[in-house]
Amino acid sequence: MPKNVNRQFRLKRRPVGRAERTDFDLVESAVPTPGPDQALVRNLYLSLDPTNRIWMSDMDQYMPPVAIGEVMRGGGIGQVIASNDPAYAIGDLVQGLVGWQDYVLSGGGEMPLMPLPKGLPVPPTAMLGAAGATGITAYFGLLEIGQPKPGETVLVSAAAGAVGSVVGQIAKIQGCRAVGIAGSREKCRWITEELGFDAAVNYKEPGWREALDRACPSGIDVDFENVGGEIMDTVLARMNLHGRVALCGMISGYNAGERMLGDFQTILMKRLRVEGFIILDYLPRFAEAAAVLGGWLVEGKLKHRETIVDGLENAPAALNRLFDGENIGKLIVKIADPT
Amino acid sequence: MPKNVNRQFRLKRRPVGRAERTDFDLVESAVPTPGPDQALVRNLYLSLDPTNRIWMSDMDQYMPPVAIGEVMRGGGIGQVIASNDPAYAIGDLVQGLVGWQDYVLSGGGEMPLMPLPKGLPVPPTAMLGAAGATGITAYFGLLEIGQPKPGETVLVSAAAGAVGSVVGQIAKIQGCRAVGIAGSREKCRWITEELGFDAAVNYKEPGWREALDRACPSGIDVDFENVGGEIMDTVLARMNLHGRVALCGMISGYNAGERMLGDFQTILMKRLRVEGFIILDYLPRFAEAAAVLGGWLVEGKLKHRETIVDGLENAPAALNRLFDGENIGKLIVKIADPT
Repeated sequence: MPKNVNRQFRLKRRPVGRAERTDFDLVESAVPTPGPDQALVRNLYLSLDPTNRIWMSDMDQYMPPVAIGEVMRGGGIGQVIASNDPAYAIGDLVQGLVGWQDYVLSGGGEMPLMPLPKGLPVPPTAMLGAAGATGITAYFGLLEIGQPKPGETVLVSAAAGAVGSVVGQIAKIQGCRAVGIAGSREKCRWITEELGFDAAVNYKEPGWREALDRACPSGIDVDFENVGGEIMDTVLARMNLHGRVALCGMISGYNAGERMLGDFQTILMKRLRVEGFIILDYLPRFAEAAAVLGGWLVEGKLKHRETIVDGLENAPAALNRLFDGENIGKLIVKIADPT
Repeated sequence: MPKNVNRQFRLKRRPVGRAERTDFDLVESAVPTPGPDQALVRNLYLSLDPTNRIWMSDMDQYMPPVAIGEVMRGGGIGQVIASNDPAYAIGDLVQGLVGWQDYVLSGGGEMPLMPLPKGLPVPPTAMLGAAGATGITAYFGLLEIGQPKPGETVLVSAAAGAVGSVVGQIAKIQGCRAVGIAGSREKCRWITEELGFDAAVNYKEPGWREALDRACPSGIDVDFENVGGEIMDTVLARMNLHGRVALCGMISGYNAGERMLGDFQTILMKRLRVEGFIILDYLPRFAEAAAVLGGWLVEGKLKHRETIVDGLENAPAALNRLFDGENIGKLIVKIADPT
């Protein structure tokens, strides 16, 4: 990739079903020149998240959809390579909505790019994952929405994913029984043997509902819901009276383009509390969560794992790993090495 | 009706669709004789409620379904006519699960029959309605689950029903905008002109969705949901961010025998909190609610209305008034006059 070119994935049309490479134009243009009070940032790492698929669609959502012709929105980490803004020094790492592109200018996006400090106690990519947006999602969703009490059973779906794997570990730290649903034996082994979940259920194996019954002998008090659809229905049927459902995502429905429904009858009869949340609502408390998560990571109480795909050009294909069940831990696209 | 006969509606089969008279056997037997520590109660008033239809079915529910062959469960008021229990004096009014029958013995049922005091400040039937289970449902559902703040918009469906009509009036007392959805012009007129709702929408008129938009110019903050289905979907689509849905009932689905679903996508994107509740959970706080409701009734801040159908034999047909939209206010079957 020539250094004087900025490659950008621009949304060409709204995907129907899976997002494909052909839903984007990969446009090459000159590297932008920073204006007064701007910095030029070389993007290094792109965070791939299920919500990216929502942003490509025009379904009702919590931020504006990406407009046709716009650079695809995406969180990530970059490095300042030129600067006319004293807030950004050359060499600084920054994080924020850097977009699916090689370069970005500070100050032009939906949110400011935030400098990362020197001497990070964790690898910079952890700031996208367990110590960043992913971990913060798990933290507030479980603790504020799920309100687990010691001894209760916390169930998390997509349990080997970036958010789910943190949810189960926080549940254990809170003194709960942590049970995960995941889609392969390797994932189930990882979350139980390495992350300390009490039990894991592989929903691709026959008899998984009975396995879920055995894994939750006292029923389920908190469901941290990432998947929706049939898996959610199966979990809701096993909720205890006055259980809480932290509705974080419903990845099973994002490609389908149909409204995602759920069982209101069970909410009524079991007096469940089902609450949707988006971490943006907790912005004033991000520091609290990040401090706690960073500390747990350094202590080794919280473990994280990354799957890193090389090359910006592979971003669209890599995103589908989230939907195909092929990903473990935090999924990141590496665009370039830091200098 | 001869005085020495106890007529009982016994559930013959689980209704398919509407409950019909033929789903019951009307059995005549001797008036029971109270044993030691028992009182014999002549039933006077039977409370008809949507939940009666749930009890007839074997759907998942919050109490055991009525078994085939059992006397139909129902709340009501009776009068003690013979007693071997010093807690019940002849002439006392009692309330509780008296069943769809002429007579009941104290101490044999799922819950004790509770004596009503002398000198009631409201008519005894109000103890089944606005000052009783119906009002308490409105009270806790709105205040504890809905948590309305002054100035917010509270929407209630089945707004001219026993619960809905109280919900809107409590919303007004709390300083909220109260909007009701009901199924006739007469109902809409009653809740706005007599009960003080700010607006009412007749869902049987064309253009009712646009009327709902006009009635809720700042969107909806709290939905007190009694109906479910299409009406609930329409309301959910108009909820504000972080709105609360107090899921009290979904009467539109009780006859259908299908699971009642709702829009989880909107819960997620708008970060709604949807919570089911059953007033039995608030039993330790019933006295608080009843004291407040009774006071509001006597002050005239809370108005109530009853529809009284004469004759136990008409209970099955009368119940369908709730599902056919033919009822206003609290629906009661009068079995006998007090002595």
